[in-house]
Amino acid sequence: MRIVGRPWILDYDSANCAIGATVAIIGERSTFLVLREAFNGVRRFDDMRRRTGMPRQVLSDRLARLVREDLLRKVPYQDSGQRTRWEYRLTTKGRDLYPVMVAMLEWGNQYAVGPAGPQVELRHRDCGEPVHLQLACAAGHVLAGAREVTPVPGPGARKIA
Amino acid sequence: MRIVGRPWILDYDSANCAIGATVAIIGERSTFLVLREAFNGVRRFDDMRRRTGMPRQVLSDRLARLVREDLLRKVPYQDSGQRTRWEYRLTTKGRDLYPVMVAMLEWGNQYAVGPAGPQVELRHRDCGEPVHLQLACAAGHVLAGAREVTPVPGPGARKIA
Repeated sequence: MRIVGRPWILDYDSANCAIGATVAIIGERSTFLVLREAFNGVRRFDDMRRRTGMPRQVLSDRLARLVREDLLRKVPYQDSGQRTRWEYRLTTKGRDLYPVMVAMLEWGNQYAVGPAGPQVELRHRDCGEPVHLQLACAAGHVLAGAREVTPVPGPGARKIA
Repeated sequence: MRIVGRPWILDYDSANCAIGATVAIIGERSTFLVLREAFNGVRRFDDMRRRTGMPRQVLSDRLARLVREDLLRKVPYQDSGQRTRWEYRLTTKGRDLYPVMVAMLEWGNQYAVGPAGPQVELRHRDCGEPVHLQLACAAGHVLAGAREVTPVPGPGARKIA
């Protein structure tokens, strides 16, 4: 965002900030890894444990929290000859975190992966072309970046007394 | 993403994953708050401290890490009659995290803020219309969501032996 001079936000209360509230729910490092696996289509505890390298109890805690927050739901499944187990699927609320994951994937693919390049790339299911996130406005303009965005106070903004 | 049956990713190594690498750099809760302030145009230590409620030493550590990772740079400033101090500005690499912040803001505005509604909304600088993130492909199609995206192995993908 393009901010010149003293930012207006300094006159406002930072409690109830949407980013702060989001980070309070999903902002553990290990939670991002669990969500990554869910978006990868990995639904079973043992697969998640192997892919994330997380200790059993930590993974179990993270999954329980995500179920409690209604980001994942538990669905029973049964392999032949086995007892019933649970798999974890994204809810609508969880699936709506997809842009957060894509934004991290894009940044990581550009700045954080090794010299071999990206492990995962995204393609449009219908045409096969590479997918990317872009900023657009309600009038249909595609924005080049943060400098073309102006943050303004919303209905929940409260001035500091 | 739409994954039916066993996900291909289970046959691949999860080391060097872009999301994992990104989370390793920025995945502390408090780091998100510092980045939020930077994108809000807040550049000075004392302002950041007041807005985030972080202890001085923790904030100082987070800022040092972000400078080391080349997401923020230190720029000297001097108020009249005061000693020289430093402010923190986003680098290009840091500014490229903007979609991560916007994605969290959008999700939080929808699911995590209180009944008064969003504190901060984003507008297109040129036309004033609300700004949102969207998925698009290189052929120019705008995608409705995760279900229209197919993840595929990239050049850095390594099968498990």
